[in-house]
Amino acid sequence: MEAFSTISGIRKWVRSARAANETVCLVPTMGYFHEGHLSLMREGRKLCDRVVVSIFVNPAQFGENEDLDAYPVDLERDKSLARAEGVDAVFVPSSDQMYPKEFQTYVELTRIPGHLCGLSRPGHFKGVATVVAKLFHIVEPDRAVFGSKDYQQLLLIRRMAEDLNFDIIIDGAPIVREEDGLAMSSRNTYLTEQERRSALSLSRSLDLAAEMIDRGEKDPGKLAREMERLILSHPGTRIDYVKPCDPETLEKVEAIRGPLLVALAVRIGRTRLIDNRIFHPER
Amino acid sequence: MEAFSTISGIRKWVRSARAANETVCLVPTMGYFHEGHLSLMREGRKLCDRVVVSIFVNPAQFGENEDLDAYPVDLERDKSLARAEGVDAVFVPSSDQMYPKEFQTYVELTRIPGHLCGLSRPGHFKGVATVVAKLFHIVEPDRAVFGSKDYQQLLLIRRMAEDLNFDIIIDGAPIVREEDGLAMSSRNTYLTEQERRSALSLSRSLDLAAEMIDRGEKDPGKLAREMERLILSHPGTRIDYVKPCDPETLEKVEAIRGPLLVALAVRIGRTRLIDNRIFHPER
Repeated sequence: MEAFSTISGIRKWVRSARAANETVCLVPTMGYFHEGHLSLMREGRKLCDRVVVSIFVNPAQFGENEDLDAYPVDLERDKSLARAEGVDAVFVPSSDQMYPKEFQTYVELTRIPGHLCGLSRPGHFKGVATVVAKLFHIVEPDRAVFGSKDYQQLLLIRRMAEDLNFDIIIDGAPIVREEDGLAMSSRNTYLTEQERRSALSLSRSLDLAAEMIDRGEKDPGKLAREMERLILSHPGTRIDYVKPCDPETLEKVEAIRGPLLVALAVRIGRTRLIDNRIFHPER
Repeated sequence: MEAFSTISGIRKWVRSARAANETVCLVPTMGYFHEGHLSLMREGRKLCDRVVVSIFVNPAQFGENEDLDAYPVDLERDKSLARAEGVDAVFVPSSDQMYPKEFQTYVELTRIPGHLCGLSRPGHFKGVATVVAKLFHIVEPDRAVFGSKDYQQLLLIRRMAEDLNFDIIIDGAPIVREEDGLAMSSRNTYLTEQERRSALSLSRSLDLAAEMIDRGEKDPGKLAREMERLILSHPGTRIDYVKPCDPETLEKVEAIRGPLLVALAVRIGRTRLIDNRIFHPER
């Protein structure tokens, strides 16, 4: 496995792969790998001849009061894990290289960020779209894989790729969970033992949603209220949002009929966690 | 010369050029060609094996009260002229194809549009950056040529390409002028005979600036005032701006010492014309 810290370095490597007629898959990450990241790398290996993993804690997608400085980093461990997954190259650029002081160009979507996490994290998705556009231009992959835990991000990247005519296929990979159901996240590392127990409320509320929808519940408001009640029964939880919505537009639905996204964000102490699930209820 | 109206069509054509190891230059235009456009095509032919010219009157870069609907179009003439210049392919997409109804992704710069034309045309440069990013992704050229009459646009595209890591070389080509000095523009066609005479005030005021700088003028304010006086001595002129500024940042300069951009926009009747010149005064 090769490791590059410069844009010109990874570019040259990708170009020689391309000259050998190999396809290239990009897995953009912020590092501190867990099973979720590794599953994206495995997916990448299935889809293309070569897998490039970028590791960059992107300052542009963190708000002023968010956890940029606290975000966990362990580059050596990340490299070992990537190597073990058969990743061909890791790209770890510096902030100065990605955002030189003259930098002033941003990619922004007008509708998708007006929902869910976009409401509590203003500017977040602008930062995401911008850095992903940059990584797409640097690596010029044939495909790129994103996890479904960040469902809104996946939707946003797909929309951006379509709107700006990126010639790149965007693949989504399923959420990977701990045995007890907690969705894997680098931020789980912030949790105390007590908080870790309360964090289960997210996946459990989605299980409850599944049961309710199975039993024929058609009222999205009732679904959300029952989920909220379950979450708040766990100590130290504060709900950011619990939203049953349209999986394509993220807009509110009046009744549970077609495909439904249920997405939620909950603060456990100082840690903000997200989770989601898509349902296909019988009509 | 081949003509394409679909994104997939031009993509396939470019891909086969690339497969034959040919380099590709893109000349993005809004059509209604004059000598200025033709000079960009010639420049493209010098730089690359293949030249693609896009013709698209981009609605996203026109303000609500601007001349989108009046913008002159003559596609058949444009094609003949391009063919005569040895252009290999023209790409003429529809608005619906470029901006389908789900479209919601824009590229925006934070500083460059805060000057010159950006002030009187809010949203204009967002529309320009967005459509150029799209065209870059559709054609994936090695180089792209832009005219220097739209100096701010050229600067913006260079900055965008650098900031978003487009692997494309941006070339600027000199302003082409009528014999009497008027910078070529598709909008010159709007001018009546009387207005055509008043339109000369733009290039003449730049000539005046040249004389003043040659004579050692160091005061940008005085330079602008003298230029304005000259322009207003022509009937039917209304000044939008006359700005001596830094050619890199477009910011105001306190004194004329290093390289200086003098840019101006003047309304002649209902037609808005722009012009500019870069000076390298002796210190």
